Amino acid sequence: MNPRKILVAQGGGPTAVINQSLAGVVLEARRHRGVESVYGARHGVRGIVNEDLVDLTQETSHNLEMVAATPASALGSTRDKPDVKYCQEIFKVLQAHEIGQFYYIGGNDSSDTVRIVSEQALAANYALRCIHIPKTIDNDLVGNDHTPGFPSAARFVAQAFAGANLDNAALPGVYVGVVMGRHAGFLTAAAALGKKFADDGPHLIYLPERVFEVEKFLADVKATYERHGRCVIAVSEGVHDASGKPIISQLAKELEHDAHGNVQLSGSGALADLLCEEIKARLGIKRVRGDTFGYLQRSFIGCVSDVDQREAREVGEKAVQYAMWGGRNGATSGSVAIKRTGTYAADYELLPLEAVAGKTRTMEPEFITANGTDVTDAFRLYLRPLLGSGMPDAFRLRPNPVAKVLNKG
Amino acid sequence: MNPRKILVAQGGGPTAVINQSLAGVVLEARRHRGVESVYGARHGVRGIVNEDLVDLTQETSHNLEMVAATPASALGSTRDKPDVKYCQEIFKVLQAHEIGQFYYIGGNDSSDTVRIVSEQALAANYALRCIHIPKTIDNDLVGNDHTPGFPSAARFVAQAFAGANLDNAALPGVYVGVVMGRHAGFLTAAAALGKKFADDGPHLIYLPERVFEVEKFLADVKATYERHGRCVIAVSEGVHDASGKPIISQLAKELEHDAHGNVQLSGSGALADLLCEEIKARLGIKRVRGDTFGYLQRSFIGCVSDVDQREAREVGEKAVQYAMWGGRNGATSGSVAIKRTGTYAADYELLPLEAVAGKTRTMEPEFITANGTDVTDAFRLYLRPLLGSGMPDAFRLRPNPVAKVLNKG
Repeated sequence: MNPRKILVAQGGGPTAVINQSLAGVVLEARRHRGVESVYGARHGVRGIVNEDLVDLTQETSHNLEMVAATPASALGSTRDKPDVKYCQEIFKVLQAHEIGQFYYIGGNDSSDTVRIVSEQALAANYALRCIHIPKTIDNDLVGNDHTPGFPSAARFVAQAFAGANLDNAALPGVYVGVVMGRHAGFLTAAAALGKKFADDGPHLIYLPERVFEVEKFLADVKATYERHGRCVIAVSEGVHDASGKPIISQLAKELEHDAHGNVQLSGSGALADLLCEEIKARLGIKRVRGDTFGYLQRSFIGCVSDVDQREAREVGEKAVQYAMWGGRNGATSGSVAIKRTGTYAADYELLPLEAVAGKTRTMEPEFITANGTDVTDAFRLYLRPLLGSGMPDAFRLRPNPVAKVLNKG
Repeated sequence: MNPRKILVAQGGGPTAVINQSLAGVVLEARRHRGVESVYGARHGVRGIVNEDLVDLTQETSHNLEMVAATPASALGSTRDKPDVKYCQEIFKVLQAHEIGQFYYIGGNDSSDTVRIVSEQALAANYALRCIHIPKTIDNDLVGNDHTPGFPSAARFVAQAFAGANLDNAALPGVYVGVVMGRHAGFLTAAAALGKKFADDGPHLIYLPERVFEVEKFLADVKATYERHGRCVIAVSEGVHDASGKPIISQLAKELEHDAHGNVQLSGSGALADLLCEEIKARLGIKRVRGDTFGYLQRSFIGCVSDVDQREAREVGEKAVQYAMWGGRNGATSGSVAIKRTGTYAADYELLPLEAVAGKTRTMEPEFITANGTDVTDAFRLYLRPLLGSGMPDAFRLRPNPVAKVLNKG
């Protein structure tokens, strides 16, 4: 079947390169003779059920290229997580508009949506090719070497920590940077790629793959501060105690007992602030500063990996090629996955939707050091090629001390 | 006098280009035949009184160029604000090491230090040329069109809001971004340079030059949200009520004060969290997100204005040239200032230290709109050339709606 109509949508958190995948789908689909229309749904699955569709066949190639280089979801996104009933509504709209191919760019929730819609079509004996196109800064999709969006966000985090380390060396103290990632620590771990010299920070990295113990944390910070006279720390927002309870709620309680005041849990800067308070109060260090990278790490315009851009474009193109001509096993529905070959090249594969849908990848044990507060060289080798070309580099003055005259210091 | 020994130091908060000024001083001084040694003090005035000096004559030109392109203070910085007694200690060390020229790269506190040290030398009849080299992301030095460091930080803020606006358009809600700047709103106002389309955010900008009223703020947000279905807000960390009391102190009970007696505004997400809570509670808007740009806006590596780099280098070079050959009025001590000529070129001038020292510039009234929540075109014309080349641009899909079939939406 060479369908007349195609629909594409974007779901979940925006990334720096998700529009590359959109452009990849649209430009590739438009060059197929049998394709009459390429539609886009505004704000993901919500736009489908509301029939809020735009005709991307009427968009210029030039503007599609410009949009591709613009971060965030150009079609708009949604946080809706469809259940079976919601997917039935999606399917009704696809039927009504005679859509023959459905592409959804998103994370593991989105892949599950694609899986259910695909099952609806099968049950109704309606010919629909359903492709999930990977996207997430969390890098937590199974079956993928890595996911589009992650390398650019990782580059932002690495550059942020490279800069924070220089700032911290100039005005010594403790710096805590809180990075996104509820279950997977890949993005927080990327902070390590900002290091160059042996004594550079981040000196400590806390990942959700390891249990976070406040006492151990304070001992680590104390030891680092005594050794270097300063300490730069990367913390995942998802750090939790042995029972799985987020540290943010644990610390907030302790601080209330300490009568430290009206601590609010829901604010996005809370974890960094609470960890800083803990360090000040328990270790007696005066200069302690916390940043929460928040939305900057996924939305900042002008910090992007060219490798990520290229791959995000290709997964969109490959999605259409798989739907038109089938994957290796002939399937025309599935989830596009990135595979690594050599050091470093990317290849693509169409996985069954069930292999990806709703599953969560976390950091492989070989990427985390035994003490749990740093990454291994295996992780550095894994991440470095993804960050792309033109990574900024930090230099320092070499020591040439002048002999003292007054000897007062 | 052509002095044998020169001392340079860096004070206050690091910037993306402060090492350009350092390289400007060192490379320019080294080409003068009479100069035997160029010393640098580690961690500003603190390094001087502790005789913690390094010999920059023994640093390679290549590494100085690499350091120049690296953000933060390569010599290290300090928050010490010297009083007269401290300045006497500085002067003793300069005397002991037979320093003939003293260069201090910093903000208005640093210029005051240079002024007092200069007076000490004069009183002791010791030949010392003292030059203050401007630096501050706050852009709050009087007598300057703008200050080195500000354009690069402004560029970060503009790019951050351009990205935050796209993210907010993809997943609509309210976004609050808190920007540095205690008394001067220049850096917060730079958020406006991230706008392109008519309905782009930031829709509201709150500056320390205007009184912040929580009720007015909530009314502004409500009106914007009703109009656009979303709202992007830039807020200066220095916003205060009619009595001058910081808005942040309405939340935080234990406020940290620095050596200058200032309340610690940065390094905490408290203000953004407070404002988000107010919006949620009072306006009933569900999706409200806050970011505090914190140290990222001054330390991020890889976001720099080439105009800023060039000018920061030149103020360092001009400093040495003024000390060697005198300014327009023959003075060989003073504060280097940037002047604007045409649209746009930079020229330099040596101002008397008293004209700059300890004074604070705030935003000129013609840069702020009458309603107090936006900047004027005069400000856009002022800032745009400073941001430099290669500013990223945002594009969007043009509307081509598809006719509804089911008409359920």
